[in-house]
Amino acid sequence: MKLVALFSVVLLTTAYAAIPNIWPAPQSVTSGTTTVVLQPDFVFYSKSTSTVLSKAIGRYKSLIFNHEPWDPATTMPSVTPLPQLTIEIYSSDETLQLGVDESYTLIVPSNGNIATIKAATVWGALHGLETFSQLITYDFVYHSYLIKNAAWTITDFPRFQHRGVLVDTSRHFQPVSVLKEVIDSLAWAKFNVLHWHIVDSQSFPFESYSQPKLWEGSWSLSERYTQQDIRNIVQYGYNSGVRVMIEFDLPGHAASWCTGYPEVCPRSDCREPLDPSTEATFELIENMFTEITGGAEGSGLFPENLFHLGGDEVDYTCWLTTPHIVEWMSEHSYTCEDAYMYFIERTHSIVSGLGRDPVNWQEVFNHFGDKLDNETIVHVWLDHPKLAEVVAAGYRGILSNNDVWYLDHLDTTWQQFYLNDLVEGITDPEQQKLVLGGEVCMWGETVDASDIFNTIWPRAAAAAERMWSPATLTDTAAALPRLQWFRCFLNSRGIGAAPVSNTRARQAPEGPSGCYTS
Amino acid sequence: MKLVALFSVVLLTTAYAAIPNIWPAPQSVTSGTTTVVLQPDFVFYSKSTSTVLSKAIGRYKSLIFNHEPWDPATTMPSVTPLPQLTIEIYSSDETLQLGVDESYTLIVPSNGNIATIKAATVWGALHGLETFSQLITYDFVYHSYLIKNAAWTITDFPRFQHRGVLVDTSRHFQPVSVLKEVIDSLAWAKFNVLHWHIVDSQSFPFESYSQPKLWEGSWSLSERYTQQDIRNIVQYGYNSGVRVMIEFDLPGHAASWCTGYPEVCPRSDCREPLDPSTEATFELIENMFTEITGGAEGSGLFPENLFHLGGDEVDYTCWLTTPHIVEWMSEHSYTCEDAYMYFIERTHSIVSGLGRDPVNWQEVFNHFGDKLDNETIVHVWLDHPKLAEVVAAGYRGILSNNDVWYLDHLDTTWQQFYLNDLVEGITDPEQQKLVLGGEVCMWGETVDASDIFNTIWPRAAAAAERMWSPATLTDTAAALPRLQWFRCFLNSRGIGAAPVSNTRARQAPEGPSGCYTS
Repeated sequence: MKLVALFSVVLLTTAYAAIPNIWPAPQSVTSGTTTVVLQPDFVFYSKSTSTVLSKAIGRYKSLIFNHEPWDPATTMPSVTPLPQLTIEIYSSDETLQLGVDESYTLIVPSNGNIATIKAATVWGALHGLETFSQLITYDFVYHSYLIKNAAWTITDFPRFQHRGVLVDTSRHFQPVSVLKEVIDSLAWAKFNVLHWHIVDSQSFPFESYSQPKLWEGSWSLSERYTQQDIRNIVQYGYNSGVRVMIEFDLPGHAASWCTGYPEVCPRSDCREPLDPSTEATFELIENMFTEITGGAEGSGLFPENLFHLGGDEVDYTCWLTTPHIVEWMSEHSYTCEDAYMYFIERTHSIVSGLGRDPVNWQEVFNHFGDKLDNETIVHVWLDHPKLAEVVAAGYRGILSNNDVWYLDHLDTTWQQFYLNDLVEGITDPEQQKLVLGGEVCMWGETVDASDIFNTIWPRAAAAAERMWSPATLTDTAAALPRLQWFRCFLNSRGIGAAPVSNTRARQAPEGPSGCYTS
Repeated sequence: MKLVALFSVVLLTTAYAAIPNIWPAPQSVTSGTTTVVLQPDFVFYSKSTSTVLSKAIGRYKSLIFNHEPWDPATTMPSVTPLPQLTIEIYSSDETLQLGVDESYTLIVPSNGNIATIKAATVWGALHGLETFSQLITYDFVYHSYLIKNAAWTITDFPRFQHRGVLVDTSRHFQPVSVLKEVIDSLAWAKFNVLHWHIVDSQSFPFESYSQPKLWEGSWSLSERYTQQDIRNIVQYGYNSGVRVMIEFDLPGHAASWCTGYPEVCPRSDCREPLDPSTEATFELIENMFTEITGGAEGSGLFPENLFHLGGDEVDYTCWLTTPHIVEWMSEHSYTCEDAYMYFIERTHSIVSGLGRDPVNWQEVFNHFGDKLDNETIVHVWLDHPKLAEVVAAGYRGILSNNDVWYLDHLDTTWQQFYLNDLVEGITDPEQQKLVLGGEVCMWGETVDASDIFNTIWPRAAAAAERMWSPATLTDTAAALPRLQWFRCFLNSRGIGAAPVSNTRARQAPEGPSGCYTS
């Protein structure tokens, strides 16, 4: 019984109130009652030669020791020293793709021994480093970095493998520096996907070498991403364990393609959906997709296996009012529905030929159901219940139901984000496995560099915990102080997360206050 | 006449519309018609061994070459190469104080010769580097860094020597990382002062070693600045040519002092203005000020010569309702006005003894006029016309008139910020010289890490140009496209400046748009 007296064992699934300030909550945590202090010569050690890991250690040193230069005014009395964190990684495979093992175990002893992170892959180790950094508090009196409530044993892994935030850079351009800061913040909340909705009707900021006139559809000569910019961003995400999934939304939401290549659009005064009747459309798409993926085995700009093809909100008006398209449909005995399906099949064929799995917004499933090829991933946004139909039909699904997971809906509360149960209505375990995860969507109509962070955060964090942590965590009152803590934690790292208790997203604080209660 | 054909000579004072995208506008600019391209091995060279300069060059390399790695897809045809920027600094004195020479000359030839910055001090050289960086545009087709319209000759210096932004870290704590980013952005607009309103009634985040209970008045145990944090911030400002002027607002706006030291306040239920009747108050103040300045010749935490003592909004109620203070006033035959003057004199004496010049908000002048010691600097905020009286009385003045230069007034437009003529009503050149400059004030009641950048910017930039550039620049329509450009420029460097055309500050963009027209 001595053990019980020394340690307060916290099992998350049964004792929510006792969850420490870690966001998202780990799968299992035990803690104790000892305070350990990081020694001034604290060492991060690993046998691994991974540059991903060594870069991450460099980042975390800066993030953790943020009151540098370290100059303890006084020596802290009677605390156990913590000399080192050793990181063990079992596999040297650093492929970052859907389903990669992100698990880790973090042990912080209370007896002066070294702390350890053990992980199957470097990606799990990165999550372990983040959790380790969240355990550390700075003591402002003793000018020391502490971990309270040691010994810690944290065993952790994500509940869902695909945990993303969509960023739309077409309605407003987002500078590269902003996207990198978004990636930083995603990693800190253990998101692992930046869904880059890079182009849309309003602008085409993407550089294609093979189709160099495409970015004539950008807002201006400088609101553009060069391939080097994109390579930088993808690499930056990789170094933080964040996959960059690109989306080219087709055939709707594509008017900006017409600026450089009017031949792929129905008419200059009716530009989308793209023209399905001409091979020029599919040649353009195939050329560009081949270029940016580097071909079937290529890593190109986008090594990511998932390739988002959009496919939503296809309005047939421009097809029906353009004589040569009407004629083409008539020749093939196509209805508009058939033409839409034809377009989807052609683009799927291109993407599959490049070794990628196509992702489509749910309209494609709503229209064509089980006629879609098996590798299609359906991205549900209109209505959550459709996800059950998607997985019942054997397809994999991603959830972004707009009623509660659209960040541009400013009246959606963090509690609504938090309580969005991805597998609601899906009872078959095999079907549940087909739910890859979800994304919260930062559509950019009213979001530019000035408000992207306070619109994304803190609400995205609520979704991050929903997708990472045990399904049983549904007590928003218990989560509130931890979320407030995490918001302030993001602020301390320079991310402009808004107050948690806003009645509407991204509102300013109402009056003077400390961060932890606002 | 050939010369006229080759060069369009822009004299700012006569041809506003032709001012290039440089913010704030330089004192004089001539440009030409040649495009030069920075060579891939472009060199920043200086004989100077200044570490301030070498750090600045490092920063500007990153800021300028922001599409790295540099991989020109094609060679740009028929442009003149620019191989090097040479920086010449005439004085090795790197003291950063009020009145330091900030002038520079920047020449960018059109014939392939090296560009030069010549400056009296490193601080002028830093401004020259910023201007140089603003001249550079990235050509997205040729993947090259260009300077168009060479040859350039820019002769530049500030109109006013004190150009600041006040940041209030008491109503809301601002993390160190945020303050550093604020300093970055100030330097880019050629501001040279961060007026740090560090404490106020609501919280006392400042660490004093000699008075260690003071920061018990902080919002929380972590919403605090260690002396190392402060040293970092002051050094960070120094490296960017931004002086950090600290303010301890006394005797009003000081309730937070009472948390740790109740003996310096009238009563626990009536805490400010501080108690003038006890030596404990002045001992506490003197101890702390001595500590943080390092004494009369010391640099301490704050090497800055100007020391802001607040002095505004002194409400006598707590004095009049506290028996021992009433008794003390009676003993000395003091009115409340006398007690206020006594407080000001005592604190001025402390600050003067430490070799600093006291700055006070204008109430101190309103109440006591020419009874103030000569070195007093009066900070006008209530009404602009008072500044004329201040300088007529022989005092130096700083302007922050709240009707148009308070950033927390969200309905104040950038045009109002822009048109605030500091020397309005002051015709005597000698009196004009006593106007040191001004500050725009970011009071923190509704500003935390989530909205500080979109509340400060872009309106602060309008004031920056007013204080730097020729007085004759008063055409807001002509300034608008340049200010829109500068807002997007700040965005590209990761600063969340809001759209220029907002009807109210920090509002989100209304709909999809490119940056340059929103």
